Amino acid sequence: MHTQMDYSKAKDWIVRESRFNSNTLGKCESIMALGNGYMGLRSSTEEKYLGETRGYYVAGTFNKFNEEEVTELPNAADIINMEITINEDRFTLDAGKIVEYYRELNIRNGQLHRHVVWVSPKGDKLVLDFYRIVSLKDLHVVAQKVIITPLNNEVEIGITSGIDGRMTNSGSQHFSDGDKRFYEKKYMQFIQVTNQTKIKFVHNSALQFTVNGRKKELNPHIIMDRRRIYCKYRESLSQNDTLVIEKISNVYTSRDKEYENLDVKEIQKISLNSLKEAMQKGYDRLKEESERHWEEKVWNRVPVIIDSEDEYDQLAIRFAQYHMEIMTPDHDNRMCIAAKGLTGEGYKGHTFWDMDIFNLPYFIYSFPEIARKLLEYRYLSLEGARKKARENGYKGAQFPWESAWLDDGEVTPEWGAADIVTGLPTKIWSGFIEQHITADVAYAVWQYYQITGDQDFMDRYGYELIFDTATFWASRLEYSDEDNLYHINDVMGPDEYKEHVDDNAFTNYMAYWNIDKAIEFYEFLKNKNKDLFELLNEKMNLDSRWEEWKSKKPLIYLPQPREKDRVIPQDKEYLNLKNIDLTKYKNQEQVGTLFLDYNLEQVNKIQVSKQADIMMLFFLLEDKFSHDVKRANWNYYEPRTLHDSSLSLSTHCVLACDMGDYDMAYELFKRASRIDLGPNMNSSNDGIHAASLGGIWQSTVYGFGGVRMVNGELRIEPHLPKSWKSLSFPIYWHGQRLQIEVKNDLLKVENQTNKEEVTFINYGIKYTFKENITVKL
Amino acid sequence: MHTQMDYSKAKDWIVRESRFNSNTLGKCESIMALGNGYMGLRSSTEEKYLGETRGYYVAGTFNKFNEEEVTELPNAADIINMEITINEDRFTLDAGKIVEYYRELNIRNGQLHRHVVWVSPKGDKLVLDFYRIVSLKDLHVVAQKVIITPLNNEVEIGITSGIDGRMTNSGSQHFSDGDKRFYEKKYMQFIQVTNQTKIKFVHNSALQFTVNGRKKELNPHIIMDRRRIYCKYRESLSQNDTLVIEKISNVYTSRDKEYENLDVKEIQKISLNSLKEAMQKGYDRLKEESERHWEEKVWNRVPVIIDSEDEYDQLAIRFAQYHMEIMTPDHDNRMCIAAKGLTGEGYKGHTFWDMDIFNLPYFIYSFPEIARKLLEYRYLSLEGARKKARENGYKGAQFPWESAWLDDGEVTPEWGAADIVTGLPTKIWSGFIEQHITADVAYAVWQYYQITGDQDFMDRYGYELIFDTATFWASRLEYSDEDNLYHINDVMGPDEYKEHVDDNAFTNYMAYWNIDKAIEFYEFLKNKNKDLFELLNEKMNLDSRWEEWKSKKPLIYLPQPREKDRVIPQDKEYLNLKNIDLTKYKNQEQVGTLFLDYNLEQVNKIQVSKQADIMMLFFLLEDKFSHDVKRANWNYYEPRTLHDSSLSLSTHCVLACDMGDYDMAYELFKRASRIDLGPNMNSSNDGIHAASLGGIWQSTVYGFGGVRMVNGELRIEPHLPKSWKSLSFPIYWHGQRLQIEVKNDLLKVENQTNKEEVTFINYGIKYTFKENITVKL
Repeated sequence: MHTQMDYSKAKDWIVRESRFNSNTLGKCESIMALGNGYMGLRSSTEEKYLGETRGYYVAGTFNKFNEEEVTELPNAADIINMEITINEDRFTLDAGKIVEYYRELNIRNGQLHRHVVWVSPKGDKLVLDFYRIVSLKDLHVVAQKVIITPLNNEVEIGITSGIDGRMTNSGSQHFSDGDKRFYEKKYMQFIQVTNQTKIKFVHNSALQFTVNGRKKELNPHIIMDRRRIYCKYRESLSQNDTLVIEKISNVYTSRDKEYENLDVKEIQKISLNSLKEAMQKGYDRLKEESERHWEEKVWNRVPVIIDSEDEYDQLAIRFAQYHMEIMTPDHDNRMCIAAKGLTGEGYKGHTFWDMDIFNLPYFIYSFPEIARKLLEYRYLSLEGARKKARENGYKGAQFPWESAWLDDGEVTPEWGAADIVTGLPTKIWSGFIEQHITADVAYAVWQYYQITGDQDFMDRYGYELIFDTATFWASRLEYSDEDNLYHINDVMGPDEYKEHVDDNAFTNYMAYWNIDKAIEFYEFLKNKNKDLFELLNEKMNLDSRWEEWKSKKPLIYLPQPREKDRVIPQDKEYLNLKNIDLTKYKNQEQVGTLFLDYNLEQVNKIQVSKQADIMMLFFLLEDKFSHDVKRANWNYYEPRTLHDSSLSLSTHCVLACDMGDYDMAYELFKRASRIDLGPNMNSSNDGIHAASLGGIWQSTVYGFGGVRMVNGELRIEPHLPKSWKSLSFPIYWHGQRLQIEVKNDLLKVENQTNKEEVTFINYGIKYTFKENITVKL
Repeated sequence: MHTQMDYSKAKDWIVRESRFNSNTLGKCESIMALGNGYMGLRSSTEEKYLGETRGYYVAGTFNKFNEEEVTELPNAADIINMEITINEDRFTLDAGKIVEYYRELNIRNGQLHRHVVWVSPKGDKLVLDFYRIVSLKDLHVVAQKVIITPLNNEVEIGITSGIDGRMTNSGSQHFSDGDKRFYEKKYMQFIQVTNQTKIKFVHNSALQFTVNGRKKELNPHIIMDRRRIYCKYRESLSQNDTLVIEKISNVYTSRDKEYENLDVKEIQKISLNSLKEAMQKGYDRLKEESERHWEEKVWNRVPVIIDSEDEYDQLAIRFAQYHMEIMTPDHDNRMCIAAKGLTGEGYKGHTFWDMDIFNLPYFIYSFPEIARKLLEYRYLSLEGARKKARENGYKGAQFPWESAWLDDGEVTPEWGAADIVTGLPTKIWSGFIEQHITADVAYAVWQYYQITGDQDFMDRYGYELIFDTATFWASRLEYSDEDNLYHINDVMGPDEYKEHVDDNAFTNYMAYWNIDKAIEFYEFLKNKNKDLFELLNEKMNLDSRWEEWKSKKPLIYLPQPREKDRVIPQDKEYLNLKNIDLTKYKNQEQVGTLFLDYNLEQVNKIQVSKQADIMMLFFLLEDKFSHDVKRANWNYYEPRTLHDSSLSLSTHCVLACDMGDYDMAYELFKRASRIDLGPNMNSSNDGIHAASLGGIWQSTVYGFGGVRMVNGELRIEPHLPKSWKSLSFPIYWHGQRLQIEVKNDLLKVENQTNKEEVTFINYGIKYTFKENITVKL
């Protein structure tokens, strides 16, 4: 275990690295990443290191390198680079002597700060402070400030900085080399165009300088090279002089709604002017503006307050909120949340069920208008989903396991890491057989509707989504002459350590649920909204679909708890597989250690689960199973679950709360919160774990806060961990903002909107109130 | 000036670096590059550094990244990487302590050796020796050997090494990510395919280990990643144990003549088997085999021996020979010599007039059979040259300024570095107006024929080349009503600091010469070889061409020496341009310093030349100008020439010999030999200077050795620099191998073939001999 991370300043909203190690750069690049939903910027340092992975992604700008690769978010030109020399010694923490060092992400205002006191190989001692933000106010702007003071000698400082378009996605170059322009001996501009999707990126960047508080014009030496434009500056400083370097950059693309129909020359002009304005403001004002946005948009609106003995818990939930804010392209419903947000190449910027099931709930309860946009993305993707269904011989809409452009359909890559036994790459089956995603989308739509009551969304988008997904399932069912029932064979459930299984319980139940909901909504519309019904019936031929749903639903095989121990078989074979001693893998510090000993084919034959599967089913359809069935399955499956997926721990945390295993729940919460924030220096290399961050919020609000929507009703049954004195947070319920506080065995709920009566259930009792209410727990 | 390079072991054929500096890696990567004409491998270190430029090129595998870029040699997967850890400390010379260090290229056997005694940050002291060859025997093979001995502690060594397909050409990725295979827990295979030209590269690589002299099987942990396949090994060593790591790699491509029609699976099989055989042999035997080839093919055949007070002179000529050997794809006449050989991205692997005028003479006199292949490349490129002529509205064949694939035509990029005044990229005009290349090709053909007497070549290829180039010139001439003469307007001569000039003397004279030669050969064939004449006349319609040549030739404007000072105007305007004080630029250590003060538009208006232009004319057509005209022009132009092109110094060296300025000639030779081999640590970053290396041989053999073909006759008029006691070298003249020795004011010529009489001129006297002859100088 490394001890590089330091959470002593957790109560100040600070994620801190206290020691620099150039072998573990990926950690802070990802967890300290900056962004605003429009763009994400990995927090690589100004100076370069060998093991770094610089990353700069603009949401929705997907591109395919060639026909053999899948579409992904391209790594845009690097704009944060700054090579600093001190009397010709290159500033690098791998040489010279580090006297003081820390790096901090302030998640309250989104500012990254690095503080270094450094002695160069030649013996020059300096203090350097590096500040950086990605503006939450102006979505196009990245601002940097570097303050350098020589402490013992006169020094000549060299600064080389510009726009570097040589970045790739692990070697795949998505861009053409484009025009470079240098305006007014100050402003650098670089244009790059994605090679397949022809999205134009216009980058602008410029530097300005202050010496001892006075602005100073320095003359650059300009370098235009292949895929690069750079400025070189030199300045001499006396001892204790202070040089402030500001570098302001922006990026505009033809994927931006406002600019997609403009000629690139227009975008060049607009973006250059906007850079000039930002340079006028300077770093400090840009930072203040952005900070105010953080305060107004996020922290004042959704303050989740945990009074814990361990201040790290408070940091963890805020860290989750910080990242959910920067990962979410809420400016554009043609884009969605990716499995690694905008913080890395991992999962290629694609959207998974992680969004619908793990991230969306935070937004439904906290920012329903953003949640709606995320689901509009699913609606707009229907064409792609219908294409996928057609290609596979099904009807309706089969959502892709991985999703990018609206009309792409499936974009899951087909090949993964090497098989340790055969030496061949492993086939990735998710895109073919991990079919539960289609029900997950339907579930997300239903959940959104139940919690927000947004009838307009349902009328425009929601019903169609539920009907088309149900239609997929009806066509997907396989009739068996043996038992005269419908089965779903050859799938993968959430547990990806079991490929090609028949009758995965999660999948069958969710498919059943989906068809059931379609029937319910069909009947509801036919009776209550004839106009809309006629419209949809004409468009979708609902009557005949309804016939099929009705006739097939009762014949869907739903695996039942076996008699002897109430355990529901995860799939047809699972309970017959061999058991092995999993102790060493359960205790693992890294995920996936099982694969050092077994290949996937072997793992398929062992009673071991990557992640929650039956538990996930209990989590989503919690009113369909009795407590004793849940308990029996928990006891059976938890010891067999390695939590090798970041989606697993938080689900189990919530379930542990439901089981009443509060100590274990808190332990699972801790582990979930360590997936990114913890001491493992490699787990986040490819980007943060978006679903896990949603899971931290769910553990807090669903688990300990006890907030749940059950069959359309609000239930609040909190139970705090021993070390928590209080927990408070707001939720939105049918347009009402409810402030919930749990403290001293009291549950207080205040309706801050205060317009309508609200009803909730607490341990079997229904409470209805308008202004506020206190319930003794 | 750095003092990193060390030539104290020059007499042992050693190019040596005595200090390591990670800021100047490009120098040794280029000048110590390995290769065999099939492939070129930059000598980057096994461990990675930030400023490195790894490069691995297979001749002739050109690819265009996209339509906006020009075709170039793609940077193939890196196979020399090896990350070594010592008790978890990464071996890097940027950390820990270097106790001993040197890196040597042995140009006699082509072996690279790096010796390091290093103390890790943890305090472990080790001696490491790194050896590497690219086989001259088996053109596909790269072999490495690393010997590690811990000197003070027991250590655990970690080795991570494989095939890395993430390499790009400065950000442009030419390859698709391809299949990876791992065979028999040992052999790694990686396939990459160029994206436009669809050339398949099959890379194979494997490691084997010896501990204290005994083979040891280590089990790897295999990593297949995006564009990468790697093996990780671990081994514990006691103090003074010796671990030998051998890594053998090969590359086969579908561009190889032998494999172009095979299915890639076949190439995979063949290359894997051949790797297994190479692994059997092991590093030492592979190295011995290659060494023997160097001895037989190069050093025993063309020993150029200089007995100088400064042993560096001998090294310089051998260094030139070494690089001319490894840059030349003599295995395949569809490929040619590139301006940077196979040692870097510079000039994209393209062929320039550098080949015809600077490199070819070495091969004509030393390896006529290779010279023929190089000219066959020009012949096979005729289609592209005809295309270029057609596209520009001319007839015949207009050779491209830069050449790649045979049928590409022009491949010169259109845009270059930034203009310091406007901030815009500079337009590169060479591809449009640097038209003398077409006469240069014709000259090369004629020169080859005169020196070798290879009539078969002329019959098959040579005449057609001369006729078609002359036809281009005839169509290119512009008639002026003012003087009733033909002019050639809007061109660039060899001096690239004068764009868009009219009547460039070099161009006009060479065009005249080209037409004149065509007339001569037309008349010769018509009289002496009627069959061939008929054939060519039918194919090319020679009769009507001849009419045009005959009528136009006498009217071509040839700039004459002006009366007052015998100076020939380099072009119509040159002598009227303003003169500035060039002292500071003449004394420059870097080339191109003029551009720190002036942009190209301004340079166009100053009497300053990048390189020899009129001097080049005297060099090629030396019998056309009297000595006093040469002297007058030398006096005028030399002070105005900055030698900013690497083609310039050697030409001036030869001219200085002709002028009798022997001290200056020697100084120019020294400067020419320092272009790559000298102490400037950046000048070779993008690759060695192929033409300059040819120029070193020309300075030696043409300049001091005094060997020249003048109008078909051999002239030998040596004059050694003061510090040279003797000079000896062989040349081939009309199939006879002549061993020439200059020593003690005696010229000895021995006909080692001894079959035919040979005649040569020495200071006006003709000597004819059969066996050998000695002439007093």
